[in-house]
Amino acid sequence: MSLVQQSRPVREDARLDEARHSVESTLRDIVDGLHPDLSRLCGYHFGWSDAGGTPTGDGAGKLLRATLTLMSAGAVGAEPATAIPGAVAVEMIHNFSLLHDDIMDADALRRGRPAAWVVYGTGMTTLAGDALIATAFRALRSLNSRPGLDSADLLLAALHQMIDGQAADLALEQVPVREVDVPHYLRACAKTTALLETATAIGAVLGGARTATVDALREAGRHLGLSWQVANDVEDIWGDPALTGKPARSDLGRAKKTIPVILALRAGNPAAAELAVLLDQPEPTDDQVQAQADLIERAGGREQAEALSGRYLEVALGKLGEADVPEVERDRLIGLFRLVAGHHPAPAGGDDRASARVV
Amino acid sequence: MSLVQQSRPVREDARLDEARHSVESTLRDIVDGLHPDLSRLCGYHFGWSDAGGTPTGDGAGKLLRATLTLMSAGAVGAEPATAIPGAVAVEMIHNFSLLHDDIMDADALRRGRPAAWVVYGTGMTTLAGDALIATAFRALRSLNSRPGLDSADLLLAALHQMIDGQAADLALEQVPVREVDVPHYLRACAKTTALLETATAIGAVLGGARTATVDALREAGRHLGLSWQVANDVEDIWGDPALTGKPARSDLGRAKKTIPVILALRAGNPAAAELAVLLDQPEPTDDQVQAQADLIERAGGREQAEALSGRYLEVALGKLGEADVPEVERDRLIGLFRLVAGHHPAPAGGDDRASARVV
Repeated sequence: MSLVQQSRPVREDARLDEARHSVESTLRDIVDGLHPDLSRLCGYHFGWSDAGGTPTGDGAGKLLRATLTLMSAGAVGAEPATAIPGAVAVEMIHNFSLLHDDIMDADALRRGRPAAWVVYGTGMTTLAGDALIATAFRALRSLNSRPGLDSADLLLAALHQMIDGQAADLALEQVPVREVDVPHYLRACAKTTALLETATAIGAVLGGARTATVDALREAGRHLGLSWQVANDVEDIWGDPALTGKPARSDLGRAKKTIPVILALRAGNPAAAELAVLLDQPEPTDDQVQAQADLIERAGGREQAEALSGRYLEVALGKLGEADVPEVERDRLIGLFRLVAGHHPAPAGGDDRASARVV
Repeated sequence: MSLVQQSRPVREDARLDEARHSVESTLRDIVDGLHPDLSRLCGYHFGWSDAGGTPTGDGAGKLLRATLTLMSAGAVGAEPATAIPGAVAVEMIHNFSLLHDDIMDADALRRGRPAAWVVYGTGMTTLAGDALIATAFRALRSLNSRPGLDSADLLLAALHQMIDGQAADLALEQVPVREVDVPHYLRACAKTTALLETATAIGAVLGGARTATVDALREAGRHLGLSWQVANDVEDIWGDPALTGKPARSDLGRAKKTIPVILALRAGNPAAAELAVLLDQPEPTDDQVQAQADLIERAGGREQAEALSGRYLEVALGKLGEADVPEVERDRLIGLFRLVAGHHPAPAGGDDRASARVV
């Protein structure tokens, strides 16, 4: 892969970078157009300003979903810039879901800072999320084209799936962990997989790809999403808080039904039995949470989850292989997929362990 | 008007009723298709079931926005049924806003029962509101037609305006009441006027009306919305709790900046001065709130607000007069407008005082 990457035309990367900058500036313009109170909240949430509205000089982060959309358009032979409204829409829906989900999940930290609802209250944060939904569809309608319309339909379907997935995720809280099965877990996964799938598909649609190509890329994106969600569950337990931006093992402390726990409990070994007992603690201490994490690992939950994430990534890469795109483009998408899923060789910057969190 | 109403063909009313029944059953079908937890919450919110999910045997209420859409389509010469997806979409957006706004405004009662967030929590209620936004746009996309698309654009614009209006309304809470001016109040009014305006416009669009007719009906709907909002502010202070479904003077107790208060403070008479002092009480007792209401009335705030609501209604009816629709249809719309604005002769059922609340 590295040989291919080295040989790719520099001009193409420049085009992608340029398109990504346009996405960021479009996001800012849209946020600037909202009611001042919503604009301030969203500016803080995106990382552009501090809680009082003073610019931080920072960008909105890696915009990985937008990058997926832009690269997907490039892969099917279009200029990445063709897909800018799609990339903007996808980021807006992503950030709507972050704003609302942090309220629902009582997640007090986002990207290493207090979540928007902690700073501005749940009311205004709910409204800001609503606003981002509306801006997403307006961005796609601005295209006023058949591919723009098809993209809006895909995004609307994604929104439905994300909401269904989030409802399934909230429902998981009411189910004792030993009764949670993998299908229920997978339904909840749609809260994140639907948008990665759709980000990839929308790029292909706006790039003018044939249906078969769109479908292959869409399936690739869906499996990438599954790979990411499983890797994310692992990171939430064993990731470095400095890189994840969240307290260590916070999911365990709140008895979230993540896949390492689900798989560990089904392992049928002594560690699994011991874990089941320990999970019955209503409010575990830090030491008990650490003991849970160790038991999940001894029962094989971590290893199985990592293997599962790897298998989903393999399926995703296989789907990329089926898509009718030039090899050089496919290799670039493969690089991005590996980065998103967190299964990639350490890049020069050495921030590979953070990759599962940056999306 | 009564003569015209008596002479209208019975068959047309039957068509409207039939279309309205279709709207209700479509709403139910859509809600049934959501995640079971969201379905239960929405079923309760619409009034179809109790908190546990047991059917109440009740309908979703008068569906006044849907009725506006259906009647607007009928007025421009189409079958009311043509506009069913538009009527469904409008009701879904309306109910999204009720779910979210009740959280933001900490309104614990809705239609005389505990609001959904009180029963199911803010998280699931936020998500249910999100789901209703998505279902609204799916309903319009199901038309797969140019008018359907135009309607979706109108609804998207309305969603933006409603959110901006709600943000302006929340911002009002931070402004001392004597500094609130009428333009700020009017910006906040968009939270309700935008959808009444759009419900009317969408009916005309789906009915195939010319642009000039759509515009006249849209402007009529906007002024109807203003008339309603002002009348609603009056009802919130002086309405009968048994009819409004809310505690008496609840807006006053929470120092909401309603138009009777704003107008009373600007009256420049002794009652206005006395009111300004009384409004500085941080947590007024019931007696103090009653005294506030009396002072607003003595300062002329109630009378001025009622006159303002009446003037907006007159403008709305004037705009109806400009629309190129048959007189019999215009008269029927006039009847509905009067019902919505609460400025209408008592109907046989005698529930006229409740009309400002039923929307």
